[in-house]
Amino acid sequence: MQVDLPEVLAEVTAQFARYEQALVGNDVAVLDELFRADARTLRYGTGENLYGYDAIMAFRAARSPIGLNRRTAKTVITTYGRDTAVASTLFYRDTLPGRVGRQMQTWVRFPEGWRIVAAHVSIIDEPGDNKTDQKT
Amino acid sequence: MQVDLPEVLAEVTAQFARYEQALVGNDVAVLDELFRADARTLRYGTGENLYGYDAIMAFRAARSPIGLNRRTAKTVITTYGRDTAVASTLFYRDTLPGRVGRQMQTWVRFPEGWRIVAAHVSIIDEPGDNKTDQKT
Repeated sequence: MQVDLPEVLAEVTAQFARYEQALVGNDVAVLDELFRADARTLRYGTGENLYGYDAIMAFRAARSPIGLNRRTAKTVITTYGRDTAVASTLFYRDTLPGRVGRQMQTWVRFPEGWRIVAAHVSIIDEPGDNKTDQKT
Repeated sequence: MQVDLPEVLAEVTAQFARYEQALVGNDVAVLDELFRADARTLRYGTGENLYGYDAIMAFRAARSPIGLNRRTAKTVITTYGRDTAVASTLFYRDTLPGRVGRQMQTWVRFPEGWRIVAAHVSIIDEPGDNKTDQKT
C-alpha cells in the first residue's frame, strides 16, 4: 500500500479543487458528476442523511444557491494506493460565526474517473486550541 | 474496480463489529489498534478535530467510559476493490433524545490488517422522514 504517490495525489487534488469551485458556484452538473452514480453512494449532510446518488442529486437540485461561499482551512488529502483517497477540510462561512464546518470525502478511481463514494459534512462550535489538538 | 466482493465485505464487516464492541465497552486497546498508526490519520469527532494517531490515542485515553452505549441503525458497509472500504452508520444514545449520530469511517487494508485511516462523527437533530429521504 503506497501512500501519497505524487501523481495520484496530484490527480485527486485537482478533482478536489474542481469540487470546491463547483460547490461555491453551485455548479450542480459538476457536483453531480463527481459523486459516483450508484445506489451505494452516501452523503451525510449538515442536516440530512442522503442514501444513494438519486437522493444526493435531488438535494443539490433543490438547494438554494445563496450563501454557499466559504473559506477552507487545514485541508488534508491522502491517497492510498492508486485508486483511493480521503479528502478532508475545515470550512468557515460568514453566516456561521464561531462555528466550523468539517467535510470529509472518500474518493475512488473508476474507469470513468475519480468519484466521491461517501461524504460527511457537519458543523460544530469552533473548538478551543487545546481541544482541537488534544495534546493534553 | 470490484465493489462488494463477498470475502472482502465479510472481512471489513467483522472488523467493523470489533470496533463497535470496543467502542461501547471503551476497550481502548482495540480502538487504538484499529486506527492506523500514522500522522495522516484523521478523526473529526462530535466536538473536536483530531489530526494524527497520537491525538486520537490521547483523546481515547482521556475519554470518560460512562454513557458510551448506543444503538446503531442503517449501517452501510461498501468495499471498493480488495483494500478499501467505507463503513457508515447512524447511532442513537438514550442520553441524546431526538438526536441522531452519524459515524463514517474509511478503512484501508495494510500488511498489518484493516485500519481506519479517516473517521467523522457528528450528531444532528433527527431529520423528518421527508428530509432523510430527500425524495421530494
